[in-house]
Amino acid sequence: MKFLLFLFVGVVHLLSLNSGKAIYKNDICQRTFQEIKEEIACYGDVAKAIINLAVYGKAQNRSYERLALLVDTVGPRPSGSKSLEKAIQIMHQNLQEDGLENVHLEPVKIPHWERGEESAVMLEPRIHKMAILGLGSSIGTPPEGITAEVLVVTSFNELQRRAPEARGKIVVYNQPYTNYSRTVQYRVQGAVEAAKVGALASLIRSVASFSIYSPHTGIQEYQDGVPKIPTACITVEDAEMMSRMASRGSRIVIQLKMGAKNYPDADSFNTVAEVIGSKYPEQVVLVSGHLDSWDVGQGAMDDGGGAFISWEALSLIKDLGLRPKRTLRLVLWTAEEQGGIGAFQYYQLHKANISNYSLVMESDLGTFLPSGLQFTGSEKARAIVEEVMSLLQPINITQVFRAGEGTDINFWIEAGVPGASLLDDLYKYFSFHHSHGDTMTVMDPKQMNLAAAVWAVVSYVIADLEEMLPRS
Amino acid sequence: MKFLLFLFVGVVHLLSLNSGKAIYKNDICQRTFQEIKEEIACYGDVAKAIINLAVYGKAQNRSYERLALLVDTVGPRPSGSKSLEKAIQIMHQNLQEDGLENVHLEPVKIPHWERGEESAVMLEPRIHKMAILGLGSSIGTPPEGITAEVLVVTSFNELQRRAPEARGKIVVYNQPYTNYSRTVQYRVQGAVEAAKVGALASLIRSVASFSIYSPHTGIQEYQDGVPKIPTACITVEDAEMMSRMASRGSRIVIQLKMGAKNYPDADSFNTVAEVIGSKYPEQVVLVSGHLDSWDVGQGAMDDGGGAFISWEALSLIKDLGLRPKRTLRLVLWTAEEQGGIGAFQYYQLHKANISNYSLVMESDLGTFLPSGLQFTGSEKARAIVEEVMSLLQPINITQVFRAGEGTDINFWIEAGVPGASLLDDLYKYFSFHHSHGDTMTVMDPKQMNLAAAVWAVVSYVIADLEEMLPRS
Ligand SMILES: [Zn+2]
Ligand SMILES: [Zn+2]
Repeated sequence: MKFLLFLFVGVVHLLSLNSGKAIYKNDICQRTFQEIKEEIACYGDVAKAIINLAVYGKAQNRSYERLALLVDTVGPRPSGSKSLEKAIQIMHQNLQEDGLENVHLEPVKIPHWERGEESAVMLEPRIHKMAILGLGSSIGTPPEGITAEVLVVTSFNELQRRAPEARGKIVVYNQPYTNYSRTVQYRVQGAVEAAKVGALASLIRSVASFSIYSPHTGIQEYQDGVPKIPTACITVEDAEMMSRMASRGSRIVIQLKMGAKNYPDADSFNTVAEVIGSKYPEQVVLVSGHLDSWDVGQGAMDDGGGAFISWEALSLIKDLGLRPKRTLRLVLWTAEEQGGIGAFQYYQLHKANISNYSLVMESDLGTFLPSGLQFTGSEKARAIVEEVMSLLQPINITQVFRAGEGTDINFWIEAGVPGASLLDDLYKYFSFHHSHGDTMTVMDPKQMNLAAAVWAVVSYVIADLEEMLPRS
Repeated sequence: MKFLLFLFVGVVHLLSLNSGKAIYKNDICQRTFQEIKEEIACYGDVAKAIINLAVYGKAQNRSYERLALLVDTVGPRPSGSKSLEKAIQIMHQNLQEDGLENVHLEPVKIPHWERGEESAVMLEPRIHKMAILGLGSSIGTPPEGITAEVLVVTSFNELQRRAPEARGKIVVYNQPYTNYSRTVQYRVQGAVEAAKVGALASLIRSVASFSIYSPHTGIQEYQDGVPKIPTACITVEDAEMMSRMASRGSRIVIQLKMGAKNYPDADSFNTVAEVIGSKYPEQVVLVSGHLDSWDVGQGAMDDGGGAFISWEALSLIKDLGLRPKRTLRLVLWTAEEQGGIGAFQYYQLHKANISNYSLVMESDLGTFLPSGLQFTGSEKARAIVEEVMSLLQPINITQVFRAGEGTDINFWIEAGVPGASLLDDLYKYFSFHHSHGDTMTVMDPKQMNLAAAVWAVVSYVIADLEEMLPRS
């Protein structure tokens, strides 16, 4: 493979000479889109070199193998856990050993919640042990549990209409799954809304596109002034069954026991590594994923995949001897699942430099076969991103969608920085999301190769263009 | 809907007159295939009447609703359990109340195995609580469990090659899923093969086409002269993870605890109901599914669906005022999951009458959108079945495949009786098979309507044809 690598480096040198002319031109006037288009077209060979290395060359399956080793070794990595901190230390070492630059940890205080022992047993109309997962930040029940009759509703509206029936009961939400961002409101707000009408606890139908009796956990939020009640997710199957039972007039009684507990904030870190820019080192293209996960499964998909293709992007660029004009910065966020805690800290610390952020990227929707890139930014910036994505024609992944986003990059996007995220099969993603099923079994090395190629080409080319992405 | 029903009955009377002629002809010579084809073509209107009632008329969703009520009420129905016997009593009453004929129970002694409490914890290389389900008929472990190092193999061949390594270990099978009948050998024979080479226990990768960290149980078989060792299934995810760990040279240690126990045989019943034949009441077309299930989920798919479309077939025929020439017999088998125990007893009791069985049918591969009928029998019989299936053109389900089968009807098929089974999406079926996910959530009322229509048309027409299906 060495031969091919030398060849690629040769191509890159030629390209540098080419863009040298453009730089000169740029110094005197803002360039037309046609000029930018021509500039991007010159990256065709670099894009091919990245694709060859990632998809067909010696780097193929590397992100998958690296990820498997980490998540098999440390398992799930919930905020506040020892395994998360172990993963951060391992990654710190990995990134150094990989020869990346400016590898360091940025301290963050993060929430520490543990579910403890938990169980839910239907006592009436028949004995049935239910699969549950307490929701992040939920309080526990008394040790003897909460035993109460169930009120099943399919929406917050129905809960309002039937508010008088809710007092002293366990509210079960059997909301249909429409899409994640809508349906997740039941997980996030379900306990508060149930508590407002006097419920003792709430059980939420898992927010999932598909189920094999799998509970899907996630964060929930209490509200000041509203009593805190214990809350957990149940399976789609049990929510639907209780809905049927209730519609037949059956009385349903559940005993819920949750040992969940919130502990004092813990010490953690965002993990950072760079390929420092050759010309505008203070300017940044940020690529990222989060290293924390829920406490079930392996956090291989959410968001091991995103974190590891982000690392892979820098590895590929380094391996090819490439150095973009501005700095390519990898951030592996901590405590994303608790609401972007690590990312918020990073934003506070670095926002003074916001004018130097060309693009913020996060992959946190899976690293299956990519459908393309989601992008948020001005129409001018979008046109440039579309040109960059056309470089991925050799692997037929060129589409640019709306609504680039990610919990960890939204702080920057809302402040006007262009943002991009990787899009793939969301039905598949939300089949495993936050469940025991988020393991290496759902990951595919070939798909990760393609995702890494997209990630590397986009981040490298945008970091190397003569100009930052325009904000208007 | 009454109007439509009257209309249908009118059609049927006309058909009876038509087939009156055919009967006369038949008395003097065996009919040509062309004559049989014409006879079957006359059932076009009856088939439409059945389809209309089942799919568009007042019977639509009935088999789904009936099934939901039963399985929500009694839950899973393992061999030897009180819930199975409760389900049998309910069904006995249901069939009587439905106005079917000769409703009765035929006693059978069936196995009684209970899993008790069970757990598996990986102790090395990291602590990991694993989802397991003990396999039916397995013995338990001592109360303190079995703690041993793991040997991971991907095939019986690999186990043979590495036999010296297996002694004193827990053998983990990580066999790939090819198809059910092949792969299930690991579940059925895994413990015996592991015991032969001195293993203390065996854990089998669940035999499943798809997994969200879901264990899929099922029967396993000990062999005389081979020590009995405890055996359970684990998830695809954990089997794959242990395979990766082993390939990296990690030492894996598991503590397995199983409270499984075999109890004395229990009393149970096959449940029988009929529409008695008008002309050849001693001749039989048998339609069937099994009422027992595994002890997880609801047994809604395996085999609630098959049992309830079989009941529905008789209901539809009765509701339309149809009475075939030979007897249409519904059998709801008991203890299929233990190896067709109820069906074997039935065969012993009824095989003297084998020459009078025109066709045995079982639906035990799901009642999703049917792809068609699987059929085993002579080519002459197959040609007739193909003609009958062409009557289902209005719902576009006309295909006849090879290899009609079913644990409960195989006794008859092997003895030469033509057999038919319902084929649908087996990938979906084996995603939920024998798991906590076998619930009403995977069932679709519209798909059950279509399955019931196929089942009713095939069973009625073949029961009403002038001649039995030829065996050669
Ligand atoms: Zn995530
Ligand atoms: Zn079955």
